[in-house]
Amino acid sequence: MKTASTILTVGSMAFDSVQTPAGKADKVLGGSVNYFSVAASFHAPVQILGVVGNDFPQSHIDWLSTRNIDTTGVQIADGKTFHWVGSYDGKMNEANTLSTALNVFEHFDPKLNPEHKKADLIFLANIDPVLQQSVLDQVTNPKLVACDSMNFWITGKPEELKKTLKRVDILSINETEAFLLTGEKNIITAATRIREMGPTVLIVKRGEYGAMLITQTGIFLAPAYPVDTLVDPTGAGDSFAGGFMGYLASQNADREMAKTDPKKWDSMLRRGVIAGCTMASFTVQDFSLHRLMRLEGRELALRQDELMKMIQIG
Amino acid sequence: MKTASTILTVGSMAFDSVQTPAGKADKVLGGSVNYFSVAASFHAPVQILGVVGNDFPQSHIDWLSTRNIDTTGVQIADGKTFHWVGSYDGKMNEANTLSTALNVFEHFDPKLNPEHKKADLIFLANIDPVLQQSVLDQVTNPKLVACDSMNFWITGKPEELKKTLKRVDILSINETEAFLLTGEKNIITAATRIREMGPTVLIVKRGEYGAMLITQTGIFLAPAYPVDTLVDPTGAGDSFAGGFMGYLASQNADREMAKTDPKKWDSMLRRGVIAGCTMASFTVQDFSLHRLMRLEGRELALRQDELMKMIQIG
Repeated sequence: MKTASTILTVGSMAFDSVQTPAGKADKVLGGSVNYFSVAASFHAPVQILGVVGNDFPQSHIDWLSTRNIDTTGVQIADGKTFHWVGSYDGKMNEANTLSTALNVFEHFDPKLNPEHKKADLIFLANIDPVLQQSVLDQVTNPKLVACDSMNFWITGKPEELKKTLKRVDILSINETEAFLLTGEKNIITAATRIREMGPTVLIVKRGEYGAMLITQTGIFLAPAYPVDTLVDPTGAGDSFAGGFMGYLASQNADREMAKTDPKKWDSMLRRGVIAGCTMASFTVQDFSLHRLMRLEGRELALRQDELMKMIQIG
Repeated sequence: MKTASTILTVGSMAFDSVQTPAGKADKVLGGSVNYFSVAASFHAPVQILGVVGNDFPQSHIDWLSTRNIDTTGVQIADGKTFHWVGSYDGKMNEANTLSTALNVFEHFDPKLNPEHKKADLIFLANIDPVLQQSVLDQVTNPKLVACDSMNFWITGKPEELKKTLKRVDILSINETEAFLLTGEKNIITAATRIREMGPTVLIVKRGEYGAMLITQTGIFLAPAYPVDTLVDPTGAGDSFAGGFMGYLASQNADREMAKTDPKKWDSMLRRGVIAGCTMASFTVQDFSLHRLMRLEGRELALRQDELMKMIQIG
């Protein structure tokens, strides 16, 4: 069996306080780097770049290290960890942010060590596009770069975000963000606009309805795995990205494949999307990282297989 | 090539006046029977039961007759045709009914002639469950019965609806209706409750996100075909049902197949759902039946194939 490629990711490490129709959780672990790295680590080794305050439990960083996650890029700064407070109503389609205390995250400046610079795959989670570019400036020669973003940056730093987009292969955002980024109201036309901005691959996240993959060869429509208990959707998008990029790393993905073997490339991306949807479906079944923390490889493989069967014509 | 089975359908024939973000259409052809029968007629012969007023254009009934649709069950009553006035906002997920004039439809009483009674497949569109049962009382020995319903009957005549459900094989409703019918909030648990009420097959329509098929063997998740122009979602559900039942009729579907050849049965249902999603995607691209009226078999087959490819892992 070939060795999986290494993924480097940068983003937030946070405490979340969240209330949903299923209950509430106070100051639990959250942030894109946590969700992404734990999800991706089921498939491939991950290096993380982030910052926490001195109130962050060392035990969690130690736990990450036991799971194929290189935590040498985690800075511990004087002050408090980023804290997000939010809630979800009804069908839990959208988060209501009640407060955001950036704390030490406000002055985050990702610094890469020589090992980080050699990473094969890069995932730039949803942070300031200036920082996303700073990471790209420091890496040597990644084979594939993916990024996420959100309304806050699309409206707040559109020019910087567009600079980032010119340098990435894959963008994963949700449907509303795709409309906001392009000014379009139809997802097919929005996808065309976005693919003109740089990313050759677009993933549109559709929450409980799954994800849409748009590449040079066409469209793939992946459903969400239908869970019987939805507890907390926080982290679903980052878990999706972790499952997706993890799968790509396990297949030694390289953007050159799009030219040298477009059929294999497309199939790999489609399987990656299914891996992402599967991972997200576990995350939403409990608060924080709780479900991912007790997830076993066998369960993951079973559900992934089940989801594949749910789209087979037979 | 084997001959397709015959489908008998009962429901409304109407004039619709509808306004959407894409424009408006006044007193155009609508009603479940019109959408269903035109859609189904691409795959199989259809017999329709309905009532219109003497303001209904004979030319439309004549046109239906040219398309493999037996219109001998259309009653022409003294008075005006059923007229629905509605609008859609934003993403066009839900219709706002502005007025409903039942007119001659109020006293509709479906009468079956000897040919109707011998129909192989029955589709009971969204009408009073008492009338749905009256049709079932009159048919001889159908091989498969499907029905639709809506909020109005779920809350207004729950006991009668439950009597209908005991006698049908397939129920197609939307997600909100499934929740209302069962009091559940999760679609998986709602599906289990509904399948205990009678139908062994449940189709949950999810609008722009496609449809979910739940059978004894599992779940199939079909996406909607992503259209680049959405004009008017009116009739999408009935066109879906027409495409679905039409495909089943073309395969000579019979409920016994669920026991004798469950694999073939399941695959047929899945292909039927894809046929339904494809048909609905044409309907929403124009007002009324306009797109279906100019739809060619070749276009339909092409898009159906395209949609199949959009869910293939490769």
